[in-house]
Amino acid sequence: MTIRDLTAKDMSGLAEAGDALSRTGFQATNAGRAIEIIKKMKKEQATVFLTFTSNMVASGLRGLFAEMCKRRMVDAIITAGGSLDHDLIRSAKKYELGDFVMDDAKLHRSGTNRIGNILVPNECYVYLEGFMKETFDALYAKDRTTCPSEIARAIGERTKPDSFLHWCAKREIPVFCPGITDSAIGLQAYFYKQRRRDFAIDVTKDMSRLAQLSLNASKTGGIVLGGGISKHHAIGVNLLRGGFEYAVYVTTSSPWDGSLSGARTNEGISWGKIKESANHVTVDGDATLAFPLIIAPFLK
Amino acid sequence: MTIRDLTAKDMSGLAEAGDALSRTGFQATNAGRAIEIIKKMKKEQATVFLTFTSNMVASGLRGLFAEMCKRRMVDAIITAGGSLDHDLIRSAKKYELGDFVMDDAKLHRSGTNRIGNILVPNECYVYLEGFMKETFDALYAKDRTTCPSEIARAIGERTKPDSFLHWCAKREIPVFCPGITDSAIGLQAYFYKQRRRDFAIDVTKDMSRLAQLSLNASKTGGIVLGGGISKHHAIGVNLLRGGFEYAVYVTTSSPWDGSLSGARTNEGISWGKIKESANHVTVDGDATLAFPLIIAPFLK
Amino acid sequence: MTIRDLTAKDMSGLAEAGDALSRTGFQATNAGRAIEIIKKMKKEQATVFLTFTSNMVASGLRGLFAEMCKRRMVDAIITAGGSLDHDLIRSAKKYELGDFVMDDAKLHRSGTNRIGNILVPNECYVYLEGFMKETFDALYAKDRTTCPSEIARAIGERTKPDSFLHWCAKREIPVFCPGITDSAIGLQAYFYKQRRRDFAIDVTKDMSRLAQLSLNASKTGGIVLGGGISKHHAIGVNLLRGGFEYAVYVTTSSPWDGSLSGARTNEGISWGKIKESANHVTVDGDATLAFPLIIAPFLK
Amino acid sequence: MTIRDLTAKDMSGLAEAGDALSRTGFQATNAGRAIEIIKKMKKEQATVFLTFTSNMVASGLRGLFAEMCKRRMVDAIITAGGSLDHDLIRSAKKYELGDFVMDDAKLHRSGTNRIGNILVPNECYVYLEGFMKETFDALYAKDRTTCPSEIARAIGERTKPDSFLHWCAKREIPVFCPGITDSAIGLQAYFYKQRRRDFAIDVTKDMSRLAQLSLNASKTGGIVLGGGISKHHAIGVNLLRGGFEYAVYVTTSSPWDGSLSGARTNEGISWGKIKESANHVTVDGDATLAFPLIIAPFLK
Repeated sequence: MTIRDLTAKDMSGLAEAGDALSRTGFQATNAGRAIEIIKKMKKEQATVFLTFTSNMVASGLRGLFAEMCKRRMVDAIITAGGSLDHDLIRSAKKYELGDFVMDDAKLHRSGTNRIGNILVPNECYVYLEGFMKETFDALYAKDRTTCPSEIARAIGERTKPDSFLHWCAKREIPVFCPGITDSAIGLQAYFYKQRRRDFAIDVTKDMSRLAQLSLNASKTGGIVLGGGISKHHAIGVNLLRGGFEYAVYVTTSSPWDGSLSGARTNEGISWGKIKESANHVTVDGDATLAFPLIIAPFLK
Repeated sequence: MTIRDLTAKDMSGLAEAGDALSRTGFQATNAGRAIEIIKKMKKEQATVFLTFTSNMVASGLRGLFAEMCKRRMVDAIITAGGSLDHDLIRSAKKYELGDFVMDDAKLHRSGTNRIGNILVPNECYVYLEGFMKETFDALYAKDRTTCPSEIARAIGERTKPDSFLHWCAKREIPVFCPGITDSAIGLQAYFYKQRRRDFAIDVTKDMSRLAQLSLNASKTGGIVLGGGISKHHAIGVNLLRGGFEYAVYVTTSSPWDGSLSGARTNEGISWGKIKESANHVTVDGDATLAFPLIIAPFLK
Repeated sequence: MTIRDLTAKDMSGLAEAGDALSRTGFQATNAGRAIEIIKKMKKEQATVFLTFTSNMVASGLRGLFAEMCKRRMVDAIITAGGSLDHDLIRSAKKYELGDFVMDDAKLHRSGTNRIGNILVPNECYVYLEGFMKETFDALYAKDRTTCPSEIARAIGERTKPDSFLHWCAKREIPVFCPGITDSAIGLQAYFYKQRRRDFAIDVTKDMSRLAQLSLNASKTGGIVLGGGISKHHAIGVNLLRGGFEYAVYVTTSSPWDGSLSGARTNEGISWGKIKESANHVTVDGDATLAFPLIIAPFLK
Repeated sequence: MTIRDLTAKDMSGLAEAGDALSRTGFQATNAGRAIEIIKKMKKEQATVFLTFTSNMVASGLRGLFAEMCKRRMVDAIITAGGSLDHDLIRSAKKYELGDFVMDDAKLHRSGTNRIGNILVPNECYVYLEGFMKETFDALYAKDRTTCPSEIARAIGERTKPDSFLHWCAKREIPVFCPGITDSAIGLQAYFYKQRRRDFAIDVTKDMSRLAQLSLNASKTGGIVLGGGISKHHAIGVNLLRGGFEYAVYVTTSSPWDGSLSGARTNEGISWGKIKESANHVTVDGDATLAFPLIIAPFLK
């Protein structure tokens, strides 16, 4: 294929720009390929695993995740504990825009927490505390031992329609969160357990359901935004079936330190976490810029 | 300002998405700020310096640069020698899409040169050789000693309307290229000089014209894509006037190694290369993804 | 302080090079600062939390971690599930050096898994399977419900002295692993649970012990290598005490995407995860290059 | 080869650590490979091209460059104009350590310029102004038209033995600087030309000498620190001979944007800028951390 220049006429329709992008070179090409691969996932009715990191739920991407769940574009979500924190908080409270470089001591004294250029007031966590106490009470009443996907569902049943957990609960899309204790919700679980000694979160409880999603699917696709435990858990569980048929990574990390977060899709092939025959691409860039471009054609 | 989620309705109009982007967080916010700052450059009729690296001219961004020149959105371009190479070649020849990981020894044996995921056949440089011989002959006939902006203009007079140099020649936008010998054109200059010993490229010849652009402007704005000599030359010459009033950087480099390529706009303030009172932003990301989003509102 | 040039005489003693490094500029300065901060942690007998990602345990850094534990330089480790995988495997099996770019389909067909430029033969996981079956049997015999630190300890009791888990078991250093199911060990837990339905890993069980380490310390220090859940869990639990007094981050990630992995120490101050008055530094670089330089003075 | 853990005993002798490093994995392995490749360059008496960016001359690496020149470890240097600025200034003036995040407006008002975490007082440039006026006078007296390598040599004849230009002048190592006008020296050239209209810097004048170095060598090696024009000029001129036999890159840039700065050695093979049969490696990391480790064995 030949490189073609973008022209002014491409601009007004970036949402339909898959073709133009795929011919631009560098990461625009990779974004274009990502669009093509997601098209195939949909056409082949693959079971889609969406993963993202918690900072993305603090950003405007949260709206895209909610929309994707509402439209049942995904079959499972794997994410960090912080994603649950931010989703439930933002269903009731507002985050503010700040800057990447601020006086952090001053922020601290004013009760403001910074995530890149997004600001989270302390009161948000007061709200979360009350919310989770009720949620844990409800869960505990049913069973002393709960698990991350049950917690996510119980939260989603109480949040508003701007929340991705709301739509996951409504559409019965399981949300897996293998590292759930590492979050504000986890901290509340610690406080809760001090009162209810037999309260437990058994993380093995979710594994069978997650494994079945991988084992029972005729094809699977991964939309993997950022790195960390969520990324690895998605590819790890797909190892059980010999790997993803379709995989799209969006990452800002580099592979040269051997990190999983920076690993390209091809590294996954050596492990059998992505199939040798898979359609796969890694898009290098911040998801707030790259992902709207990639997902726009499916949400317009 | 409050973080607002992107929704499906934002998607079809990313070109008009400045407002939505500026409220998304992370780099989408910075892209949104870049749009606002370019709006101000235009409103205040600032003298605009556009800089980019040569790989971008190998990509589809070349079309945007040409369009910007055609519409006189810029008053000066500062770029690397390779940008002239790619612009003149692509006015006659085609580059192909490849992949970031290929068998480079095999490519070499097949006469194909790789720039990231863009492929440049050897024949392109044969074409450039003939083109430049004529161009140098024409320049030499006028004056034994030429300079980079004269070379760029002479090229632009011979290329087609898909070329940014074409429009720079037509619109009398000077193209500065302080490191011109580091390019295929530079190599041809070396061969040319072997026949014409008194052929010279005097790089000091361009400095007065460039300095006047900075000194005579009531306001200046920089749109700085990527790093290297082009970036530094733009901010360096604006030091003469106490700095840019408006500056937008788009970069994939990090500042932690003290490199100029990774330096944020704020570092430029310490030098007086950007004014303390300037509107400025650094967008982190590959320009093929970020720049179409930023410039779309002005080219639609 | 004034920048001083490195000279040939500095070279033979990089282990004592803290002073020289701190005066070199850029990341060498930050490595020098890291050495100074770790000196203070030791002098003030701070409770030290060491965190690292699993790829580092696949690398030669594992030896440094083991040595640090042997010498009781750390009071708690927080790490990913994969760190336990690699530590127990490498106590019996060997990993090989490869390259960052290889034919991953070919690797897959030959039963070789790639982590950056490190190669892990499939047989390693066969070994892990047998090892973990016994380990889970032993744990299950004691209590139907276990937790990550108990699993880590049970592994350490069976590995050899080249293993960090061995020394953690011996020196009674707890190893926390909040996302343990995301690992080969986690996969074995899933298989184990299919036979023993009441086998459970309660991740809330570790939280009290971890919290006490933070709450009871007069001072705390963090040595945080890489990002992910391990990094956040360390700073998250130190929130309970108002933050770390000392913090050293080594990372290859950038903060511009708002990710926790790329967040600098100063972002932690806004949250109260690092004290306003803390001594802290972020070293940008691959830990296999940076960490030996930083820790050498303490292990020579 | 098998991954071996670093142990405490490796630490005191990092200078001799080539073997250990090459077995550590990730970038330590690449640093180890770099040492091996430089050993071969020396053994095979290759013509060595050293390139670096100007920020490195503002750092303590300047001392290593001077030492390498003193010992004739290099046959040619290709660098940015700013490298000449910093080298001549630091031969008389001091730079101070700062921080990567400072109040840049305040720095500006105090006459302090920031390069990452290195601070350059304004008076340094007053000194450079006087120094260059004399240097240009001396050059102009000899010939109206000068070239970058002659300027570099004239500077080196006036600087002290802590300067790399001093040793280049003494050891007759040419210093090429294709983009020389983009620097403080370039700015002085502009001022100088306003008084002496026929003063010229002909950048084609250096090309023959540089080309001969490539064409006449039986083997060539590149030690390429950072990116930009210096990196490309070194590999570009080696195209004339079919490429480097040995190449070591140290970079913080990524290849995913198609930039030359981030391009790995293998991309150079497709161009014939590095030989298919070459020994080559790219080390990812900040040169102030990586380069002392790599060069230590040769300077101890």
